[in-house]
Amino acid sequence: MKLSEVGEFGLIDLIKDGATVDQTSLVVGIGDDAAVYVPGRGKLELLTTDMLVEKVHFDLTTTSPWQLGYKAVAVSLSDIAAMGGKPKHIVVSLALTVETSVEYVVNLYSGIKEICREYSVNLVGGDTVSSPEGLVINVAVTGEVEPAGLLRRSGAKPGDLVAVTGYLGNSACGFDLLRRRGWEDYEYAWPLVTAHLTPRPQVALGQSLAAWGATSANDISDGLASEANELAKASGKAIKLYSEKIPLSPELVQAAALFRKKPLDYALYGGEDYQLVFTISPEQFARLPQVAGQFSAIGEVAEGEGVTLLGQTGKPVRLNPKGYNHFR
Amino acid sequence: MKLSEVGEFGLIDLIKDGATVDQTSLVVGIGDDAAVYVPGRGKLELLTTDMLVEKVHFDLTTTSPWQLGYKAVAVSLSDIAAMGGKPKHIVVSLALTVETSVEYVVNLYSGIKEICREYSVNLVGGDTVSSPEGLVINVAVTGEVEPAGLLRRSGAKPGDLVAVTGYLGNSACGFDLLRRRGWEDYEYAWPLVTAHLTPRPQVALGQSLAAWGATSANDISDGLASEANELAKASGKAIKLYSEKIPLSPELVQAAALFRKKPLDYALYGGEDYQLVFTISPEQFARLPQVAGQFSAIGEVAEGEGVTLLGQTGKPVRLNPKGYNHFR
Repeated sequence: MKLSEVGEFGLIDLIKDGATVDQTSLVVGIGDDAAVYVPGRGKLELLTTDMLVEKVHFDLTTTSPWQLGYKAVAVSLSDIAAMGGKPKHIVVSLALTVETSVEYVVNLYSGIKEICREYSVNLVGGDTVSSPEGLVINVAVTGEVEPAGLLRRSGAKPGDLVAVTGYLGNSACGFDLLRRRGWEDYEYAWPLVTAHLTPRPQVALGQSLAAWGATSANDISDGLASEANELAKASGKAIKLYSEKIPLSPELVQAAALFRKKPLDYALYGGEDYQLVFTISPEQFARLPQVAGQFSAIGEVAEGEGVTLLGQTGKPVRLNPKGYNHFR
Repeated sequence: MKLSEVGEFGLIDLIKDGATVDQTSLVVGIGDDAAVYVPGRGKLELLTTDMLVEKVHFDLTTTSPWQLGYKAVAVSLSDIAAMGGKPKHIVVSLALTVETSVEYVVNLYSGIKEICREYSVNLVGGDTVSSPEGLVINVAVTGEVEPAGLLRRSGAKPGDLVAVTGYLGNSACGFDLLRRRGWEDYEYAWPLVTAHLTPRPQVALGQSLAAWGATSANDISDGLASEANELAKASGKAIKLYSEKIPLSPELVQAAALFRKKPLDYALYGGEDYQLVFTISPEQFARLPQVAGQFSAIGEVAEGEGVTLLGQTGKPVRLNPKGYNHFR
């Protein structure tokens, strides 16, 4: 069915169903001029936004509408996770071409609602407009955090360890796989492609990190090199990373060989992992609950500036932020 | 200067300056993963978002970057006004083509910061990405409202008057003028073109309306016909409007003649006025502070459904929502 047949208001009716996951703090959801909710008592409010553009952030040939909806929300939830917060409400803006089918939009919202259910987040509003060319999706998310649970980029202290959650580089390698015909035949491809298409933001861990003693944190959206540089810059400190300690999945190592790339480069410069990088004292790190290697210490904070990578042999290398520059 | 020369982080440094207008509740502004603020004690939080797309909502030949920035924020502040709220924080997402100059972006943010200053709103974050074709701007805004000050679309009661702020139709007629060569020569054109390019959301009036007895409200973004239908539908009531009571500016009447259009049609179907339409008892309406005719009673609420327009002569006409359908 064509969008013109259901119209903007018909579309809103389709979207409304299942949009509210947690009614406790919601006063007005979809359907008025703005959403209304009760802020958490004694909590701080968080606000962030991310825009995904067709042919820049995703490709309709390799991303299903369900995956696109899921990921667009994941990207923003990850920012809330990096602040130690719990995401609460999202508003979604969509620019759609006239050729977009109603089914496509319904599937896209199905992905949005799936991740909202998983993370107990309410879809409370948005805007749907036409686009002369290419799909654009913007998600703005609010969250809340106890003042003592807030994680900033600044706050790293000399002697702190630098640590990360999960594996790094999977998403970027998954992106390379997606553009290779027949990737489905490689068994190791699936976790990588999944990491790229439907990343799972580290909200639960992020919410605990401050209580566990983390002194600063960032989510890894632009590659470890960029994110470590941001922590170093915001904290006014230097960071040393040890290449052999950076957690790489066995699947990444296998797939990287296929592309004749170094697995470590995916971790350093690939981006879109939506894991967390944080700093914490060695004593507190030792006390972190280690479920299935969910935390890896990969380096140290020192006085100074910039980020240095140390291999098992050879000279230390200065790591510059080489994340995706949108305008290059 | 090209965007590629300053990069995403250079751009953020340019944007940061002057972004914070009201420091009182802001904990973290631009530059971390999310903005952090203290919600108003005992207040409800509001959240809304709007997306403007080049060639759909604006045209670079008739809209300056400053005006575009101003208007993109105005559109969202108007939604907060329609809920009776005070806008507090915005995040701005921009998709820019590689050809966009740094100067263009700086001017756009200058317009954003101007309206933020006027309405005491903080610019606290955003996202800047590339677009293969055409500029896209999305603004998400949070606001706050006392529970007793909240205005919803539902709540209109039989016997209530329907009232509006300001003049209607100016913006749509201004849009027609903008596409006519030599419009600058018509003196009456300026207030109309200004109403279109830099609309002023009715935040101050919106914040007082609930205390003054308004029972429901909507902002007029899609034309009076659509907005009145929304109030009627949400409230489960009928609305009667009197055509001769709908406030039309003398400039609109003059300019409409130029286009051989009925001035009233601009008010009913034009949209983008960002005035407020609300319902209120006749007694309470009589007590409204009337500064320079800022309120006009234009109709009544009754039992039933739908919106009817009554002229000075002739039969009542059913008014259907004929606002802009994005997918037609």
